[in-house]
Amino acid sequence: MRPQDALPVDLPDPVREALLAPLVDHHCHGVRRDDLTRARFEILITEAGTPAPPGTTHFDTPAGAAVRRWCAPVLDLDPHVPPAVYLTRRSELGPAEVNRRLLRAAGIMAFLVDTGLNGPDLLSAAEMGRLGGAAADEIIRIEQIEQGVAETAASAASYITALGEALAGRAGRAAGFTSAIAYRHGLDFDPARPARGSVIAAAARRLAHPGGRLTDPVLLRHLLWAAVDVARERGLPLQFHTGYGDPGLDLHRADPALMTGFVRALQPMGVPVILLRCYPFHRQAAYLANVFPHVYVDVGLVLTHTAAGSAAVMGELLELVPFHKQLFGSDGYGVAETCHLGALYYRRSLARALAVRLADDEWSVPDAARVAHMIGSGNARRVYRL
Amino acid sequence: MRPQDALPVDLPDPVREALLAPLVDHHCHGVRRDDLTRARFEILITEAGTPAPPGTTHFDTPAGAAVRRWCAPVLDLDPHVPPAVYLTRRSELGPAEVNRRLLRAAGIMAFLVDTGLNGPDLLSAAEMGRLGGAAADEIIRIEQIEQGVAETAASAASYITALGEALAGRAGRAAGFTSAIAYRHGLDFDPARPARGSVIAAAARRLAHPGGRLTDPVLLRHLLWAAVDVARERGLPLQFHTGYGDPGLDLHRADPALMTGFVRALQPMGVPVILLRCYPFHRQAAYLANVFPHVYVDVGLVLTHTAAGSAAVMGELLELVPFHKQLFGSDGYGVAETCHLGALYYRRSLARALAVRLADDEWSVPDAARVAHMIGSGNARRVYRL
Amino acid sequence: MRPQDALPVDLPDPVREALLAPLVDHHCHGVRRDDLTRARFEILITEAGTPAPPGTTHFDTPAGAAVRRWCAPVLDLDPHVPPAVYLTRRSELGPAEVNRRLLRAAGIMAFLVDTGLNGPDLLSAAEMGRLGGAAADEIIRIEQIEQGVAETAASAASYITALGEALAGRAGRAAGFTSAIAYRHGLDFDPARPARGSVIAAAARRLAHPGGRLTDPVLLRHLLWAAVDVARERGLPLQFHTGYGDPGLDLHRADPALMTGFVRALQPMGVPVILLRCYPFHRQAAYLANVFPHVYVDVGLVLTHTAAGSAAVMGELLELVPFHKQLFGSDGYGVAETCHLGALYYRRSLARALAVRLADDEWSVPDAARVAHMIGSGNARRVYRL
Repeated sequence: MRPQDALPVDLPDPVREALLAPLVDHHCHGVRRDDLTRARFEILITEAGTPAPPGTTHFDTPAGAAVRRWCAPVLDLDPHVPPAVYLTRRSELGPAEVNRRLLRAAGIMAFLVDTGLNGPDLLSAAEMGRLGGAAADEIIRIEQIEQGVAETAASAASYITALGEALAGRAGRAAGFTSAIAYRHGLDFDPARPARGSVIAAAARRLAHPGGRLTDPVLLRHLLWAAVDVARERGLPLQFHTGYGDPGLDLHRADPALMTGFVRALQPMGVPVILLRCYPFHRQAAYLANVFPHVYVDVGLVLTHTAAGSAAVMGELLELVPFHKQLFGSDGYGVAETCHLGALYYRRSLARALAVRLADDEWSVPDAARVAHMIGSGNARRVYRL
Repeated sequence: MRPQDALPVDLPDPVREALLAPLVDHHCHGVRRDDLTRARFEILITEAGTPAPPGTTHFDTPAGAAVRRWCAPVLDLDPHVPPAVYLTRRSELGPAEVNRRLLRAAGIMAFLVDTGLNGPDLLSAAEMGRLGGAAADEIIRIEQIEQGVAETAASAASYITALGEALAGRAGRAAGFTSAIAYRHGLDFDPARPARGSVIAAAARRLAHPGGRLTDPVLLRHLLWAAVDVARERGLPLQFHTGYGDPGLDLHRADPALMTGFVRALQPMGVPVILLRCYPFHRQAAYLANVFPHVYVDVGLVLTHTAAGSAAVMGELLELVPFHKQLFGSDGYGVAETCHLGALYYRRSLARALAVRLADDEWSVPDAARVAHMIGSGNARRVYRL
Repeated sequence: MRPQDALPVDLPDPVREALLAPLVDHHCHGVRRDDLTRARFEILITEAGTPAPPGTTHFDTPAGAAVRRWCAPVLDLDPHVPPAVYLTRRSELGPAEVNRRLLRAAGIMAFLVDTGLNGPDLLSAAEMGRLGGAAADEIIRIEQIEQGVAETAASAASYITALGEALAGRAGRAAGFTSAIAYRHGLDFDPARPARGSVIAAAARRLAHPGGRLTDPVLLRHLLWAAVDVARERGLPLQFHTGYGDPGLDLHRADPALMTGFVRALQPMGVPVILLRCYPFHRQAAYLANVFPHVYVDVGLVLTHTAAGSAAVMGELLELVPFHKQLFGSDGYGVAETCHLGALYYRRSLARALAVRLADDEWSVPDAARVAHMIGSGNARRVYRL
């Protein structure tokens, strides 16, 4: 399955070529290096984190149907094969070959890999690049940095110092930072930088139980502002998970519009704020990108999970987002199918949107091609200084 | 007008047959047994509860246009006849014949009737079944049970006991419970089970004015948890009205995502939570169904009221909802037109969505047919153990 | 470029004629009378209020592409000319001719001009009418009235009296009031009329700094209720900016559903409440118009800014809005392009929605034509008593 075989519409050559050009995947994760049981595979094609109810399967989802339709041919199977056939073939080829095929066929020139979830089971950024025939850089998850600092700091004061140093240290080898505050607190956090006194007090509490997951609002805000300081100095963007995610978040508190005060506070600093996923608040995200000069958006993983319905999501994002503010990110994780489908549905949904604009006599062919290049790689190159 | 005449697109035979197969309507109400004036009829085709402003008519709505288009032929009239002609013919045939024709032509095999609004003017569940040529079961509205208990309990302690007994008693003959807490409080209620002391105190206040509508947050939560206890024991699902409804609710407090904490608390108990209507938060509802194993959704009444625009709503629900998590419910009430149009727009909008997926080479024909069967009746049979 | 050349679909003659009939633009602003630099022009085709980031341009937005596509031919240029060519031609023709051409070609019979932002650089309502070949009336921005009163009142008591008098005085020559409370506070304001004592106290504080922008919640509510009193007496509607706007607002606090309590309080008074823009909460707005007899909506400016994507927005508004409750407003401001595109995308997006309803065999041709007339001018004539 070559990318061009998956475009759902005829398009003029320049537009088609722009869509098929290699992409910069500005936010993804590593995929598993091991052979997977069906139970494990099913968990990795859903955000649910639990098995499907008795008598049902996670293959009976838009994403599950998409795996059978689009990934099967990459493994030399017919489209729509039953899950068992797909998984048997997957084991037969082995994880290295499956990952190589699916990543390579995604047509990606560079992966920016969020390594915050990484363990020995997941491919590193460098391995992702090697298997995918692409360059690779790292995105640093700031909550992971904090975890390391909390587990080693001797005092509240040294926690603060060490956190700043750790962020600065990792920044040197990173393309950007990413924050999961949507999961740890919600995006309705107080936008102000917390006072040092309250940070010291909270850090002292934190150090009494350093192994726990950071959820203290003062420390989460301190962490964010510490990352802002480093990002500002190094010219790095700051990504935020927003909207759609696992059941650990409260969706209504993951609306990126709730961050408007924080976005406003960052405006004079020129630190790019990049909103990931966003669904079903992607119109709110596009609005923020429309009115704030430093806000960028993607709908990453959402295209993979809405699959056959992804064209409507892409269409809604395009309603307001400036052409120089949208990015491509697969947000793939765990199985290479998610990276592959992220790229595939990005191309399919954007192809549909461009075809509509051309058929409606709204955009010119050169403009459509130019916009596809900007979103697919140009904007990411500029924002991440690749 | 047979259902098959109302499909808006050509579909392969298996998909067409699956769409036309009899449906399980898992949430509807009784319809009026008497002849209706125009004023009364107009009120029953809107959620407004008030006459249209001077010089206007509730027929000038998407639902009103749909009555003239789709119900007129069932009464042997031409499509699009003026409202006065429609209502004259309606009176001429008489309510029994009108109800029989419209319910029968809806192609429904079983009605689960929420009898919480019932008075002598509305058909009972059994009558709905008889006229519609279908089986019929009852859904119990828990706020109605509470009303009866409040009016007869002698003390706060006996209120608590009697409520548990009344719920258990009604559960024996019911297919499920339904809650209207979205109207009484909003879905942003405290998810914790209230302490017995606070329930006793609130019950004492309640018994001082037992005739009133229950709006006390502690008692509403107690009622919910009492219903959960019974539902868990009997294996019954718990339905929630969410989103779109009459002007008595505050729409922004009817977002089902606001219930995430409660949904999370119910997860280990295995009580199915069924989100009704949901609009315009149906994407939030689909998300909850996607990530929580015990959450189910429909967009019931919303398809009737969005009518010519219903395909977009169905399309958005299908973006994330697992195929085994969506249900059909007409949410019809008061006039049989609402049941008829609920089934009709369910079939029309799903037909459109399936046709798009087939045309886009996304789903196979057998998969499309299988999904139509699951949503139309299979899922309801499993969840309600019919 | 005549309006009829910009319809994207073939339509039966009566529907086509209804769409092309002159519109009542029930909410717009004045446009600049002077020649504009590129920097100034770019700012006026976005809500951002700031220049596009280095290396980018506000022309790379849906609205910017629309200017090049649809306004260029009105200035005798080819569609899609580069921004520099467009702006050179604009200067060559001069602002008076550009304004005359773009406004005239919009096909508008009456402008209701919100003069609250007016300075000497903007055309007055009368000038807008003259250049556009249309009637013109004024909409009074109540926060502007308050500013004048605050700057001249001698005491808190006289502030209250003068405010009532100023509103009543301006009402005599106005078609309606408009409120920007979404920008000054958010729509989550307390719906109750504030007590006189608290108004006096707040007014005293206000008079100590009369030059500032009114943001005091008590005075904003007092102003609103004072406007309601006058509106009720004179039969004037009250417009509210909701949803999409400049970066000064918090989008999640601009959801019109947050105003439900206030809407409910106004219901017995019969003062029409008109919700402007609404995006991305236009479904919430349509819901309010569906269930409250005195609520009206438009998506004004949003059609201009979503441009090639506007059909989806119009489609979603039409899902629930009664045909007698929707209005057309360009919300144009600053450059005549925004008025022109507002009318153009209103016609294009409604044409698309009507074509779908006809092709789907949902509406009759006479109904489609009638609805187009109602939304385009009939509803505004009734509500504003033009």
